[in-house]
Amino acid sequence: MSQPAMGPILIINPNSSETVTEGLREALAGFNSAGGPPIECLTIEKGPPGVVTQRHVDEAALHTAEVIEKRSDAAAYILACYSQPGLDLARSITTRPVYGIQDAGVLSALALADMFGVIAVAEASIPRHLRNLRRLGVDQRLAGEVALAGSVSVAESGHGEQSYALLLQAAQKLKVMGAGAIVLGCAGMSGHRTRLAAEIACPVIDPTQAAVAMAFGNLVTGQG
Amino acid sequence: MSQPAMGPILIINPNSSETVTEGLREALAGFNSAGGPPIECLTIEKGPPGVVTQRHVDEAALHTAEVIEKRSDAAAYILACYSQPGLDLARSITTRPVYGIQDAGVLSALALADMFGVIAVAEASIPRHLRNLRRLGVDQRLAGEVALAGSVSVAESGHGEQSYALLLQAAQKLKVMGAGAIVLGCAGMSGHRTRLAAEIACPVIDPTQAAVAMAFGNLVTGQG
Amino acid sequence: MSQPAMGPILIINPNSSETVTEGLREALAGFNSAGGPPIECLTIEKGPPGVVTQRHVDEAALHTAEVIEKRSDAAAYILACYSQPGLDLARSITTRPVYGIQDAGVLSALALADMFGVIAVAEASIPRHLRNLRRLGVDQRLAGEVALAGSVSVAESGHGEQSYALLLQAAQKLKVMGAGAIVLGCAGMSGHRTRLAAEIACPVIDPTQAAVAMAFGNLVTGQG
Amino acid sequence: MSQPAMGPILIINPNSSETVTEGLREALAGFNSAGGPPIECLTIEKGPPGVVTQRHVDEAALHTAEVIEKRSDAAAYILACYSQPGLDLARSITTRPVYGIQDAGVLSALALADMFGVIAVAEASIPRHLRNLRRLGVDQRLAGEVALAGSVSVAESGHGEQSYALLLQAAQKLKVMGAGAIVLGCAGMSGHRTRLAAEIACPVIDPTQAAVAMAFGNLVTGQG
Amino acid sequence: MSQPAMGPILIINPNSSETVTEGLREALAGFNSAGGPPIECLTIEKGPPGVVTQRHVDEAALHTAEVIEKRSDAAAYILACYSQPGLDLARSITTRPVYGIQDAGVLSALALADMFGVIAVAEASIPRHLRNLRRLGVDQRLAGEVALAGSVSVAESGHGEQSYALLLQAAQKLKVMGAGAIVLGCAGMSGHRTRLAAEIACPVIDPTQAAVAMAFGNLVTGQG
Amino acid sequence: MSQPAMGPILIINPNSSETVTEGLREALAGFNSAGGPPIECLTIEKGPPGVVTQRHVDEAALHTAEVIEKRSDAAAYILACYSQPGLDLARSITTRPVYGIQDAGVLSALALADMFGVIAVAEASIPRHLRNLRRLGVDQRLAGEVALAGSVSVAESGHGEQSYALLLQAAQKLKVMGAGAIVLGCAGMSGHRTRLAAEIACPVIDPTQAAVAMAFGNLVTGQG
Repeated sequence: MSQPAMGPILIINPNSSETVTEGLREALAGFNSAGGPPIECLTIEKGPPGVVTQRHVDEAALHTAEVIEKRSDAAAYILACYSQPGLDLARSITTRPVYGIQDAGVLSALALADMFGVIAVAEASIPRHLRNLRRLGVDQRLAGEVALAGSVSVAESGHGEQSYALLLQAAQKLKVMGAGAIVLGCAGMSGHRTRLAAEIACPVIDPTQAAVAMAFGNLVTGQG
Repeated sequence: MSQPAMGPILIINPNSSETVTEGLREALAGFNSAGGPPIECLTIEKGPPGVVTQRHVDEAALHTAEVIEKRSDAAAYILACYSQPGLDLARSITTRPVYGIQDAGVLSALALADMFGVIAVAEASIPRHLRNLRRLGVDQRLAGEVALAGSVSVAESGHGEQSYALLLQAAQKLKVMGAGAIVLGCAGMSGHRTRLAAEIACPVIDPTQAAVAMAFGNLVTGQG
Repeated sequence: MSQPAMGPILIINPNSSETVTEGLREALAGFNSAGGPPIECLTIEKGPPGVVTQRHVDEAALHTAEVIEKRSDAAAYILACYSQPGLDLARSITTRPVYGIQDAGVLSALALADMFGVIAVAEASIPRHLRNLRRLGVDQRLAGEVALAGSVSVAESGHGEQSYALLLQAAQKLKVMGAGAIVLGCAGMSGHRTRLAAEIACPVIDPTQAAVAMAFGNLVTGQG
Repeated sequence: MSQPAMGPILIINPNSSETVTEGLREALAGFNSAGGPPIECLTIEKGPPGVVTQRHVDEAALHTAEVIEKRSDAAAYILACYSQPGLDLARSITTRPVYGIQDAGVLSALALADMFGVIAVAEASIPRHLRNLRRLGVDQRLAGEVALAGSVSVAESGHGEQSYALLLQAAQKLKVMGAGAIVLGCAGMSGHRTRLAAEIACPVIDPTQAAVAMAFGNLVTGQG
Repeated sequence: MSQPAMGPILIINPNSSETVTEGLREALAGFNSAGGPPIECLTIEKGPPGVVTQRHVDEAALHTAEVIEKRSDAAAYILACYSQPGLDLARSITTRPVYGIQDAGVLSALALADMFGVIAVAEASIPRHLRNLRRLGVDQRLAGEVALAGSVSVAESGHGEQSYALLLQAAQKLKVMGAGAIVLGCAGMSGHRTRLAAEIACPVIDPTQAAVAMAFGNLVTGQG
Repeated sequence: MSQPAMGPILIINPNSSETVTEGLREALAGFNSAGGPPIECLTIEKGPPGVVTQRHVDEAALHTAEVIEKRSDAAAYILACYSQPGLDLARSITTRPVYGIQDAGVLSALALADMFGVIAVAEASIPRHLRNLRRLGVDQRLAGEVALAGSVSVAESGHGEQSYALLLQAAQKLKVMGAGAIVLGCAGMSGHRTRLAAEIACPVIDPTQAAVAMAFGNLVTGQG
C-alpha cells in the first residue's frame, strides 16, 4: 500500500455506547496492524444507548448520514448496527463503498455454509431482520433466528459469563435447527465470537468484522 | 497477531498456468504486507492450462483435495477457480474454512449492490455458473452474465489492452442490464480490476480477492 | 355506521405540495360521500416539494411519525407516497392499521391480474421500488417498471396533457411487457387514472385509492 | 357518485345456503349505506350447501359463469367462496373486474403484516388453498393454515359460540406460528370477524369484505 | 408382467377430434407393443374440437371426471390436454395415479436440461400455462414460451409441412432464449416430435408421451 | 420398434456392489420384457461399496465418464446413484440423454403430488441432497427428508424386514410432514417400493425406475 493519502475505513456505531465502540476497536485490532487503511471506530453521541426500536433505527439513519458527510475523507463506511440504519441513504450521498453489517454478515455466512442461523439480542428485532433478509433475497437459506433468552443490553451482549451462556444456548438451538454457520445479530456481541466458535465447532460470524474484511480486501488490493 | 504458528491462507489455482498464479500473487500482495496470516498461492502443475471443460472441473476437484490433505498446515483454503472445483469435497475433508471464489465474489457483490453482473471468459461456462447461482440461492439477483466477445485464454484475460477492451465492453453491457456491481468470472482477470472499476464507475469484484478478504478477516480477528 | 366517534382515515402526504394533496382529496372524494369514516388528507408542510431522494424518504419517515402521534384520533393511516416513508416506524407506534401505498397498490393489482407493471415518475426511484418489491415478496410478478420519459414533477404528474401523454406511453410499453394491470407509481398521478384505464383497456391502480379502499372496507364493516 | 346507471357490485355465493348469503349481506351492509354502487349478494340455488369437495368447486365454476353472463349489468363481480371457483373463466367472459376472495383476502393481509395465517373450515381444503398461494406467488409469506378443530359447516362457521371458540383457538395457534394478520378462509365466517380481531389483538381479514373493498374503491373513484 | 387383470393406462383426449386421438395412438404405439399395461386412447365426443378457451377447460374438467368414474378399471389416467382440465378433480375421485400432461412434460424436460421452452398453439393460452407453472413452482426455469406464428388448429398442429415449419421457427426462437429442452405445448403436436428434435439438435418432449412413460414405468415395475 | 440397432438404456451403478446392481435388474425387469430398447445394468467394480462420502461422489464422476466413453453404443444413460455423480460431466461428453436419478425421482414425484418427501440412507447425505434440490429449483416443494433411523448399508436398504421397518417408519414421518409422494433416496431401496406404497397408501417413487421410464418413453416413441 504505497499511496499515503488513503482515508480510513470508518466504522460508525450509531448508538451512544462507548463500551460497544471500544469492543469494536478490540475486535477489529487485527486489521489495524496490517499496514492497510486505518480502521477508525466512531460513536454517535446523540444516538440511543442501543438501537432497539424502529424509531432508533430511523433516527440513526439521519445521524449516520451526517457523519458520512462530515467525514468525506473515509475510504469506506461500515454501518455497525445489525439494523443497518440509513444504508440506502448513505449510498445515495457517497460514491464510496458502504456496508451494512447485517448484509455483510449474512452473505459471509453463506460463503461458508448451506444454511445460516442468527442470534438476536431481543425477540422484537427479529421481524425487522426478516424483512431485510427478504429484501436481500436470501431468506430461504435461514435455518432460524433465535433471541437471547434473558434480557441483555447491546453493550452487555459481548462481555461476561452471563451473556456468553445465553449466546451459547442460542447457538446450540440454531445448530439443531440446521445452521451451518451462525451470525451474531448485534454489533455488540463480537467479544464472544472466538470462544463461541471453538465451543460449538461451527463458524461464527461477527458481522462488523465481516463488513470490515470486505472493505479492507477491496482497499488493500485497490492499487493492483 | 501474536500467535507464531498460524498457517497460511492457501490459494489453490487448479490450472497449471504459473502466469495466472503470479497474477493472483500480485493481486493479493496487499494482504501479505499486512502482518496477518501469510498468503500463499499455489499452482496445480498437473492441472489443465485453464479450467474450461466440465471434465477439467471434475478432475480439478480431486487435485485440490490432494493439495488440501498435503497442506493440512493451512489456516484456510481458497479454491481460486470460478467453477470452484471440489468445494463440497474440500469441506468434507477439513474442518478449516474453505471458500469457493464464485460464491465469495457473488456474495461480496451483493453486499454492495442490488443486482450484480458477471463477466465470463467463455459462453460455454455460463450455464455452469447459473447452476451454481441456483444452488447458492441468489440467481434472482443476477442482472446478467456476459462472455468476452473474443477468444481469450484464462491467462490472457487479466493482461493486455485487447482483453481489457473486451472486459470493458462486457462491463458496459452489464451496467445497461442493471448491474450495480460486477464480478469478474475468472480468477485470471484480476489484473484489470482497478482500471475497470475506475472507468465504469461501478464496483468491480475480483472473486479471489473477495474470498481472501473473508478468510483474512476471519483470521486476523480470530484471537479477539 | 352508527358509532359517532369514529376517527378519520388520515391520508398523509409527506411532501409539501398542496396541489398533490388537493389532487388526493379529489381522487378520494367518492369515499367521503359514503357515510363511512371521514377521509382527511394532510400535507406535511416541512416536507420537500416532492419525495425524490432517499434523504427525502428518510426525513419523511420521522415527519410522518410526528403526525401519527399528534393525530392519535385517526382510525387508520395511509402513507401517501410511493416510497412509503416510515411504514415500519408508524407500525411500531400505533396499533391502528397503517398502509403504505406501494404495498397496497401492488397487492391490489395482483388481485386483478397475473403480472403487473409500474409507472415511475423518475428512473432514479426504480431501484428503491424494486427493493421494496423484494421485501414484499412479489418481485417475480413484476412485468416491468417504466419511468416517464420526460422530466415531470410529482405535482405535475397527475395534471395536463403533457404528463398524460407520457403516462400513456409508459403504460403502452408495460402492456407489451406483459402487464395485466398497471400501478401508478406516485401519489400525484391519480388525476389521470380513469382516462388512462379507459384508453389502454386495462386496470389502472391508483395506489392511494387502493390503500384507502382497504382501510375503508375494514372500517365500514368493523361493527359487523 | 352522480352517474345513475352504475351497476351493482355482484357478490356471488356459489353455495345454496341463504344463511351464508344473508351473513354476507350483513357483513357488507356498511358499503351499501355509502352512496356508492349498490352491493348485491346472490345465492346460486343449484349449488351445494357448502363448496367442500373439488367437484363442488369445478361445478361452481360453470354456475358462476352462467350468473355472470345473465348479470352483465354488474360493475364488478366477487366470487364469494374461498376456493374462488371459476375465477379464470369469469375473467375470460367479462372485461369488468372479477375478484376471488382468497386472492383479495390474502393480498389485503399482506398490506398489513409481514406474515399471514389462514383459518380453514376443514383440513381437506388446505392443500387446495396452498396450490392457489403458489399460483399467487405468496406462499413464502404464509405463517400457517389451521383448520377448525371440530366439524363445522360453512353456514355455521360464522355464527354461535361453538364455532367462535374454534376460530379463536385456530387464531391463537396462528399467532404463535408468526402470523401478523389472519385471513378467514371461508366466506361464511364473517360474522365473527370483529369480535375475533378484538380478542386476539391482531388484524382479521374477512376475504369477502376485502374483495368488495377493492371493487368499491375502484368504482367510487372511477369518475375521478 | 404376470398379473392378467391389469387395467389400461387410459389417455383421455378432452376434445372431440378423433384426428388428435388417432395421433396420440400412433405416438404411443411403442408402449403398446411392450407387454405392459394396455394403452387406451379415448376421445370425449361432447368436447369442443379443440380446448382453446377457459370455458372449454372448465367444461372438460367435468367431462373427464365422468369418464374416470365410468372407467374405474383403468390403472392410471392421463389428461391429454396441455391445460390438464380437471386434474385436481380427478385426483379427488380416484386413488389411482392421474397425470396432467403439462406437469409431466415440463418436469420431464427439467430432467434433461437447465432451462426449458414451450411451444404453444396460440398466444391466448400462454398466460394460462404460466399460472400453472407458478402453481407447479418451476416458473423460474422457463426460458420462454412461444406461440405458433400462424393460425393452426390443435388437430393440424401435428401434421403437415406448414405446421412443421411454424414449430421449427418457434423452437429456434426458444433455443436462442436459452431453452435446453423444448416441450410441445399441445397434445396434438406429437407427430412432429422426432423430426423436430433431430433438426434442432435438442431434446423435444411430447407431453403425452412423457406422462404415459411415467405411468408405464410405475406399472411395469409395480410387481417388483 | 423395428430398428434393429437401438443401443441399450445403460444403468450405471457407481458403487461396486453387485447386490445393488442385481436389485436394479430385478426392479427394472418389466421394461426389458417390453420389446423396447434393452435395459442393461452395470456395476463399476472399482467404485466404493456404497457412495457415501463426497469423495466417493467426486471419484464416481470420473468413473462414470469413463464408462460412458467406452459404451458409446448406449441410447441413454442413467446415473443410478442418488448423488448423481458426474451428471454435468456426462452431459458434456455425450449428446445422448443422461438422467440423474435424484432429479428424475423428485420430478416424477412432483407429477403426482403437491409436496414430496425423501427417505435418505444416512443423515450425512441430506445436506448434499438439499443442495441439489436448490440447483434443481424445487426445494420449496420438499415436505421433508428423513434418514433411516438405524445404520443400514446401501446394499441392505432394499432387502429384509429390518430395513423395511426403518423405511416404513421414515415414510410415516414424511406423510405427517405433508408429503403426498415419497422418493426413495437411494438406488438400493427399490426392492421395498411396492410393499411400502401399498402399506402407506401413497405413491412411492423408486428413482432409478423413474429415470428409466423417462428414457424408455423417449426411445420407444422415438420413431414416431
